Amino acid sequence: MRAARLHEYGKPLVVEEVPEPELGFGEVLVRVEGAGFCHSDLHVMDGEIPILPVLPHTLGHENAGTVVRVGPGVEGVKEGDKVVVYGGWGCGRCRYCLQGLEQLCLAPQWVGLSRHPGGYAEYLKVPHARYLVPLNRLDPKEAAPLADAALTPYRAVKKALPYLSPDGYALVIGVGGLGQYGVKLLRLLFGGGIIALDINPDRLERAKAYGADFALNPKEGGDPAGRILDLTGGMGVVAAFDFVGSEETLTLAVGVTATGGKVTQLGLAGGAARLKVLENSRFEVLFEATLWGTVQELREVVALAEAGRLTPIELEYHPLEAINEVAARLRRGEVGGRAVIVP
Amino acid sequence: MRAARLHEYGKPLVVEEVPEPELGFGEVLVRVEGAGFCHSDLHVMDGEIPILPVLPHTLGHENAGTVVRVGPGVEGVKEGDKVVVYGGWGCGRCRYCLQGLEQLCLAPQWVGLSRHPGGYAEYLKVPHARYLVPLNRLDPKEAAPLADAALTPYRAVKKALPYLSPDGYALVIGVGGLGQYGVKLLRLLFGGGIIALDINPDRLERAKAYGADFALNPKEGGDPAGRILDLTGGMGVVAAFDFVGSEETLTLAVGVTATGGKVTQLGLAGGAARLKVLENSRFEVLFEATLWGTVQELREVVALAEAGRLTPIELEYHPLEAINEVAARLRRGEVGGRAVIVP
Amino acid sequence: MRAARLHEYGKPLVVEEVPEPELGFGEVLVRVEGAGFCHSDLHVMDGEIPILPVLPHTLGHENAGTVVRVGPGVEGVKEGDKVVVYGGWGCGRCRYCLQGLEQLCLAPQWVGLSRHPGGYAEYLKVPHARYLVPLNRLDPKEAAPLADAALTPYRAVKKALPYLSPDGYALVIGVGGLGQYGVKLLRLLFGGGIIALDINPDRLERAKAYGADFALNPKEGGDPAGRILDLTGGMGVVAAFDFVGSEETLTLAVGVTATGGKVTQLGLAGGAARLKVLENSRFEVLFEATLWGTVQELREVVALAEAGRLTPIELEYHPLEAINEVAARLRRGEVGGRAVIVP
Amino acid sequence: MRAARLHEYGKPLVVEEVPEPELGFGEVLVRVEGAGFCHSDLHVMDGEIPILPVLPHTLGHENAGTVVRVGPGVEGVKEGDKVVVYGGWGCGRCRYCLQGLEQLCLAPQWVGLSRHPGGYAEYLKVPHARYLVPLNRLDPKEAAPLADAALTPYRAVKKALPYLSPDGYALVIGVGGLGQYGVKLLRLLFGGGIIALDINPDRLERAKAYGADFALNPKEGGDPAGRILDLTGGMGVVAAFDFVGSEETLTLAVGVTATGGKVTQLGLAGGAARLKVLENSRFEVLFEATLWGTVQELREVVALAEAGRLTPIELEYHPLEAINEVAARLRRGEVGGRAVIVP
Repeated sequence: MRAARLHEYGKPLVVEEVPEPELGFGEVLVRVEGAGFCHSDLHVMDGEIPILPVLPHTLGHENAGTVVRVGPGVEGVKEGDKVVVYGGWGCGRCRYCLQGLEQLCLAPQWVGLSRHPGGYAEYLKVPHARYLVPLNRLDPKEAAPLADAALTPYRAVKKALPYLSPDGYALVIGVGGLGQYGVKLLRLLFGGGIIALDINPDRLERAKAYGADFALNPKEGGDPAGRILDLTGGMGVVAAFDFVGSEETLTLAVGVTATGGKVTQLGLAGGAARLKVLENSRFEVLFEATLWGTVQELREVVALAEAGRLTPIELEYHPLEAINEVAARLRRGEVGGRAVIVP
Repeated sequence: MRAARLHEYGKPLVVEEVPEPELGFGEVLVRVEGAGFCHSDLHVMDGEIPILPVLPHTLGHENAGTVVRVGPGVEGVKEGDKVVVYGGWGCGRCRYCLQGLEQLCLAPQWVGLSRHPGGYAEYLKVPHARYLVPLNRLDPKEAAPLADAALTPYRAVKKALPYLSPDGYALVIGVGGLGQYGVKLLRLLFGGGIIALDINPDRLERAKAYGADFALNPKEGGDPAGRILDLTGGMGVVAAFDFVGSEETLTLAVGVTATGGKVTQLGLAGGAARLKVLENSRFEVLFEATLWGTVQELREVVALAEAGRLTPIELEYHPLEAINEVAARLRRGEVGGRAVIVP
Repeated sequence: MRAARLHEYGKPLVVEEVPEPELGFGEVLVRVEGAGFCHSDLHVMDGEIPILPVLPHTLGHENAGTVVRVGPGVEGVKEGDKVVVYGGWGCGRCRYCLQGLEQLCLAPQWVGLSRHPGGYAEYLKVPHARYLVPLNRLDPKEAAPLADAALTPYRAVKKALPYLSPDGYALVIGVGGLGQYGVKLLRLLFGGGIIALDINPDRLERAKAYGADFALNPKEGGDPAGRILDLTGGMGVVAAFDFVGSEETLTLAVGVTATGGKVTQLGLAGGAARLKVLENSRFEVLFEATLWGTVQELREVVALAEAGRLTPIELEYHPLEAINEVAARLRRGEVGGRAVIVP
Repeated sequence: MRAARLHEYGKPLVVEEVPEPELGFGEVLVRVEGAGFCHSDLHVMDGEIPILPVLPHTLGHENAGTVVRVGPGVEGVKEGDKVVVYGGWGCGRCRYCLQGLEQLCLAPQWVGLSRHPGGYAEYLKVPHARYLVPLNRLDPKEAAPLADAALTPYRAVKKALPYLSPDGYALVIGVGGLGQYGVKLLRLLFGGGIIALDINPDRLERAKAYGADFALNPKEGGDPAGRILDLTGGMGVVAAFDFVGSEETLTLAVGVTATGGKVTQLGLAGGAARLKVLENSRFEVLFEATLWGTVQELREVVALAEAGRLTPIELEYHPLEAINEVAARLRRGEVGGRAVIVP
């Protein structure tokens, strides 16, 4: 079958022929019909997160498609089922896996990011049926981004719910693919005001269309921290979601969060969060860098999408052969919503 | 000033002249511009809840208006402020009051329901400025029902949020004034499906207009429990809200709630909840009869309404002199949304 | 191998020769060294819970022993490991299993209580290594009761922690094996007062030795509800744990629980909980019948026991051949703590 | 009356005659019988936290004594009542006060730290009876440190309870007065292991006597982070409590906290917390700098102490005239537990 593999850090992916996977006990084979191309893929290709993969490696951790074959002992899915594939595979036995927090597994085995080949290929081998979330109405290629671009902000918003008091504001920093889902999910689950911040005017327009009450460009109109404090009557926001994660954005997020509020980091642009009370941070501000989501949370995201309440961001589809152009476009900031590979 | 007072259980209210209240330390006088007429008022008039009041008594616990005078030591409000009046007054010192749960006070002093005269009068004396939630955009007479008809379901929904997983359904039993706000609030804060149940077709139409996905009439189409289990794929709902509280509705709510789900009772029609696992109730179903709401929760409800995200149900306005006709219409089920007295 | 099997409801178990289990993919064989005899076993033998088992059936769901063989694909345990066996096996794919709540599985496969033979046998086949909790210091026969007699109250106490405010009291009704662990666990994790209630003076002595501040016998000293309200200054307890579950005990638990407190039912003596506010129940009292515990919770219980902070209740050991005498002694209330079968 | 006042930053306190306070509406006069001398007092005297006070100012925010007079309108306390005085006074109307989080008030009015004179005086005026927590058995001078030295770690531990899984370890950094109460409270409410860290061998001895399983001196035995990771099997602690708050201790706390664990900062030695995932911090580690406690939490702490379950740390008593010597001893690290002024 055809697959796009990384042979060397810093080099383009190679689209080539590889053997079709063979199924063992409990395993499932999925025909990949959509594989979202994620910013993390760029980080892996650049060798910035060389922890898990063994090269050459097939990337792709945001997958959906149709079950084409099941191994012995598989229950609960069958040939022909349309599914989204959960990607944060774990060992199934550690204290995190036992609580359903597989993405936090002490020995992570994430699809497309570890020794397990990912979805930039015709077929994907999935080790257990529990990772497959069934689709009823949605087309797999439209549903693929739910597995990361929507799931990651969903977990962050869900874990922030006790802080998301509707007499306050939420702040979304960075309105790329994940940030756009972040705004949509906040609008679905939060009754208060939403402030979005980005340097890209097109993205700010999307933020407003998706439910933001205010869209701020830090390059215009002066100090964003001051403007956010003004909008919130001096109190600050009850929850900030930083989809960028640079030194600058984390400082902003911490600085404008109200006493007792929560800052969630989702983006990994290399910044460190720095919190010092009586100086740049109010008391009882919680900070957390959330990670991806759980299988159950993916089921919840898929339910929101199947019900039509969580509508897709702008998706663009590309064949496997165009994958390096997609990578280049993403690097140049030319992807408005999410690019999906259709192998 | 004019006030509508209860002189005897089982008799109509008497609209009569009473002395205008005098202000002591920390007290505030409000010109009542809207006082919602609540089903509980009927229960009190009928002598069914003769616990707190001392007769003759001015009823009215769902009030809004304008501050006209402040006593010595008052901070934070001033003459001319438009306000909603929180009604669940407490002692301010018990373990519930200390946690901001004044409606649960061990020695309740609820306005219009205890020794404190209520809002069916031209003026209302409020013992502390903390009970006044400021209005910026809203008209007091439109905002009055927020103090109970919206606040009560808001607390119930907020306390049920950890159970309101968007891969599941919520059930609303009884779509009167509180139930209508219940549907609206669920639609604002919950991503899953909403099933509404009522015997009144007009109310079912409202439920659908306000966000319910399914509107069931138990008098048509067969056993409601069976239909709800069908809609939920046999699992049951993740949260049920019973705005009626009869033996029949509580039995239904308990019987259709999923393992690990929550049943909240809001209506007090005289039923008892009965839970027996392995018979009529699944394991780890939580049951709770929530009570009204807190001052902070009223601020959150007002914030939702001020932002235009929580829109009013159908309101009808009546002068103080018409209060006994309003009571009669409510008894006959002729009030579609909420009747507000404008003294 | 030898096993004690139930052939007919209402009849004694038959100790007989059965084939030794064969291991499939991912399965593990455990030499049973301790199998706690539980009250639920009596209910199953009497045909009162004939839901899951297919007869003839080997009972025993509270097991510990040593791993003697592992099937293909098993990771994380090896021959010679001493383990406690988690018993609430599930499908591994439903929304409960995915959250680590296997005991709540929609298609339960509990060991010794469903189609899977239990631990009243020389060997026990376990379908997945995740069900095995390793022991370092403890002897398996001493650790077996952790799998149910300690795990069940542990989950109940853990889920009640937000209610267990140290300015209040907890009530334990019924101080048999589970109730004794309940008192011990409360003393470990709760800072407030503990009131224990039982009709058996010996058990009340144990409750006091294990940490109860007050031990009440409802047969002496008058109305227990009144005495509990007196002890709590009229407020009631912040949490009640009913290890009996009769009509009478549930009524008592609901009636003496404070506003905002929690009633947890653990015993299944056939009663139904009945809650009616303004009559027998205060507002915002939560009711829940918890079920067993999760694998992670069993790991937590084992950690408490391994650290020596949770010490065993009184254990008595019996050979497999004596199992029907053990059943008889349990029926007659002659087992002070827990009887453990050592096959 | 005699009072110890700060006239100038950087100078000793002046013990002098000041007018006895006069009572207004709702106010209460307390004869101070114990006023704990806190490290924060040194920071205020040094001008490091010159935010709230207006000089000259009577310090002292950890007070207990006997009610000697009540103003008009006071309910719930009377002359002769022995009380601990809650110190984190607030406005009573902001969103924090309304939720019972007075110490987080947007306009704090803390006793002894703002415009309100504190307890280093014969008499203390308290603005509202809700700030007084009654004592039944305890002597006020023994109870005074509960108002801060015990309350502050109590809130931190209570907010960390969901993370304090008994299969893990808690870390206490800095075992001064607050840290000693921290160890005691963890031992009362947490079932897992406790690791204490301090550079003072005497304090490490106290930590062990109060319930720590391990007492580490970072000056001996090599890298403390490595030792903590070893003790926890590489996983890290589930909760870290930093009672120092220097750059070095915060770095240690963040670095050794397990995935999904919590770091709580209580000490304010001037450090900033710095969190960067994939570098020095695991994913989903929560960071929070908690602040003091609430009135309800003080009631809970007092309940623990009254019941004899929370025993005092080592207390030493000094007359008001010796207050500057007490300050000097505290600066030199010569106070083993807590010094209490008895005016």
